[in-house]
Amino acid sequence: MTRDDARALDAADPLRPYRDRFALPDGVIYLDGNSLGPLPRETAPALADMAERQWGERLIRSWNEGWIDAPQRIGGKIAALIGAEPDEVIVADSTSVNLFKLLVAALRHAAPRTTIVSETGNFPTDLHIAEGATDCVPGARLNAVARADLSTAIDDDTALLMLTHVHYKTAERFDMAAWTTRAHDAGALALWDLSHSVGAIPLDLNAAGADLAIGCGYKYLNGGPGAPAFLFVSRRLQEQLASPLSGWMGHAAPFEFGDAYSPAPGIKRWLAGTPSMLAMVGLEAGIDLWRDVDQQHVAAKSAALFDALAAIGGRLGLECVSPTDPSARGSHISFRHPKAYALCQALIERGVIGDFRAPDVVRFGLTPLYLGFEDIWQAGEILRDVLESGAADDPRFATRAAVT
Amino acid sequence: MTRDDARALDAADPLRPYRDRFALPDGVIYLDGNSLGPLPRETAPALADMAERQWGERLIRSWNEGWIDAPQRIGGKIAALIGAEPDEVIVADSTSVNLFKLLVAALRHAAPRTTIVSETGNFPTDLHIAEGATDCVPGARLNAVARADLSTAIDDDTALLMLTHVHYKTAERFDMAAWTTRAHDAGALALWDLSHSVGAIPLDLNAAGADLAIGCGYKYLNGGPGAPAFLFVSRRLQEQLASPLSGWMGHAAPFEFGDAYSPAPGIKRWLAGTPSMLAMVGLEAGIDLWRDVDQQHVAAKSAALFDALAAIGGRLGLECVSPTDPSARGSHISFRHPKAYALCQALIERGVIGDFRAPDVVRFGLTPLYLGFEDIWQAGEILRDVLESGAADDPRFATRAAVT
Repeated sequence: MTRDDARALDAADPLRPYRDRFALPDGVIYLDGNSLGPLPRETAPALADMAERQWGERLIRSWNEGWIDAPQRIGGKIAALIGAEPDEVIVADSTSVNLFKLLVAALRHAAPRTTIVSETGNFPTDLHIAEGATDCVPGARLNAVARADLSTAIDDDTALLMLTHVHYKTAERFDMAAWTTRAHDAGALALWDLSHSVGAIPLDLNAAGADLAIGCGYKYLNGGPGAPAFLFVSRRLQEQLASPLSGWMGHAAPFEFGDAYSPAPGIKRWLAGTPSMLAMVGLEAGIDLWRDVDQQHVAAKSAALFDALAAIGGRLGLECVSPTDPSARGSHISFRHPKAYALCQALIERGVIGDFRAPDVVRFGLTPLYLGFEDIWQAGEILRDVLESGAADDPRFATRAAVT
Repeated sequence: MTRDDARALDAADPLRPYRDRFALPDGVIYLDGNSLGPLPRETAPALADMAERQWGERLIRSWNEGWIDAPQRIGGKIAALIGAEPDEVIVADSTSVNLFKLLVAALRHAAPRTTIVSETGNFPTDLHIAEGATDCVPGARLNAVARADLSTAIDDDTALLMLTHVHYKTAERFDMAAWTTRAHDAGALALWDLSHSVGAIPLDLNAAGADLAIGCGYKYLNGGPGAPAFLFVSRRLQEQLASPLSGWMGHAAPFEFGDAYSPAPGIKRWLAGTPSMLAMVGLEAGIDLWRDVDQQHVAAKSAALFDALAAIGGRLGLECVSPTDPSARGSHISFRHPKAYALCQALIERGVIGDFRAPDVVRFGLTPLYLGFEDIWQAGEILRDVLESGAADDPRFATRAAVT
């Protein structure tokens, strides 16, 4: 791919108009939107309105003027992106906290089954939270096994199969429908972590028969750093599960101020405390960008961006650890490199922002809404220069930063 | 108190300069800062900087440029307001979620003791979350009793005494040192909910010997609607307790991406998921306003504002349900009224914003940073007019809004 080839691809890209809806800084090729999505142009004015008018002018009255329904309203918008009904999704807390709620609830529901089956190398907080959740349900345990051993690990003691749909490091994607069926055939529920899927690839939870899901608002959804997360509970389970985090916002009648907890009907019972409206408005502005996006355009462009960067990496002798089949991956590409951290830092210093994932992976997010083919071409030039110049041997890059 | 008296008191008020640091809307007397603090003038520019520069320009790099330490940095600032050491307080999640973490941890720590003692009529989410927490620890239970029966309820099976320091409805305040000692004498821990105390009255957790505390960022701290909450764990307990919400941000080495959970040393283990930085910057702007505030000025002015409004209410025949002794209350005043909801709505329509607490209380927050005595005088005039005109009989106020 020459620069002219790349420009021709950009000119023909039906998603190209979305690029202008992001405030991308000059001199940066941002290949980390899978970790933190960039700032949509609509977000700063929406935040200012939230602060100055809704909070500043309307004060407490705003709770009855749109705030109290925000978790369900925004959840309904996310539902359209993941193949769910609007009343099956709600925005609340963080991905970790939402996972805890669903795991404890699912373990209780599935008794006398006791086991959460998951894979080793899953995104760490999923396994950490599962440890914490099993400690809250007598007899429960986590059985994390290698991907190749998952199918045999699912048995008649399995309460729940907990998988991350797209792997944070390699971008490998599970076949959601097939694995959900595998869990159901064994009498277990299936929970999907969509953090690296939503906004990256087409999703259809209900077509797959999924029971439960969680996902992140600050990656491909561009909801802002640490944006609120979402959770999905299939309608058929909504009245059978209840949150262990039984806070007042999930109460059937929170403003009656009664002593005893009574869960709200439907999806609202998964709220716990009062949600941050500053955080909510950021998420909603990010989600609203997706309203008219054709997911098939996203999938096709993601595949083409991947192929372009995979070809560049191949020519430079980098080992790609992501699947070559687009239907078997998400929307990022990862290369293994012995000096992965230093390579990543040298690239960042030259304006190409990807990230490092311990111990030896450099990861690039391929986000079709705002990345162009010329970005990939230019990133390839800089990558070649860094590799050929030995810039990754710079001793400044010998010590890792707190966050990688 | 005449209007001239009120103006003279305002002119002599050492806290008067703080009023200009809030963006208070015209035509409103805001007596609900104990439910949602108003917008500090510094907040909107801080939010814009967070969005446009830190997120928009610096993108993922901001995690190493101040974001990752924000929960501890802001926690340290709150510590100065509550008589704690900077490394004893952290900002995370919501009040409800933080309470859940501490309750489960304390119940496990206190085994074979099984009981959380609290009071009926406590702020509902505290009791709801305690129900949820006891369900996560085998054998644990909540024993909520009337305030008069608390002392006898504390016995050798008490794991934890969980009290809200200032009552959300009546403003009654517990003697923190005395009740902490009462718990300790029985071999139990003491946990304080400071939601209606912090920023309202002087606090000294360590002088009282408190073990655990939680508190809210969006009331007297003016951190924004649904602002992140905080929690306190005494140094002497920090290595003995661990969070059931064992998410990656509380891990000892989150960016090593290992499968097994290992809690961070110190206060950081109470983090779970990734915090919202839009929410964090709002809270920090609110907290920073408190830096040079003399808490004794706050206490003295709170008492004087209370006396002024209590006198007005008394002349109008309203029944005050808040303590007359300033050391026995927080910084709001509540009146019982048979048409409390409608009275509250009629006042709001005339620009006096207080709130209703079911079933029969009208509550007014007395926030010394930005309220003046002339505000109280004027609110009193409007209150008199509403009561004498029968405005509370308006049929529009017969049905309650979703949020009260």
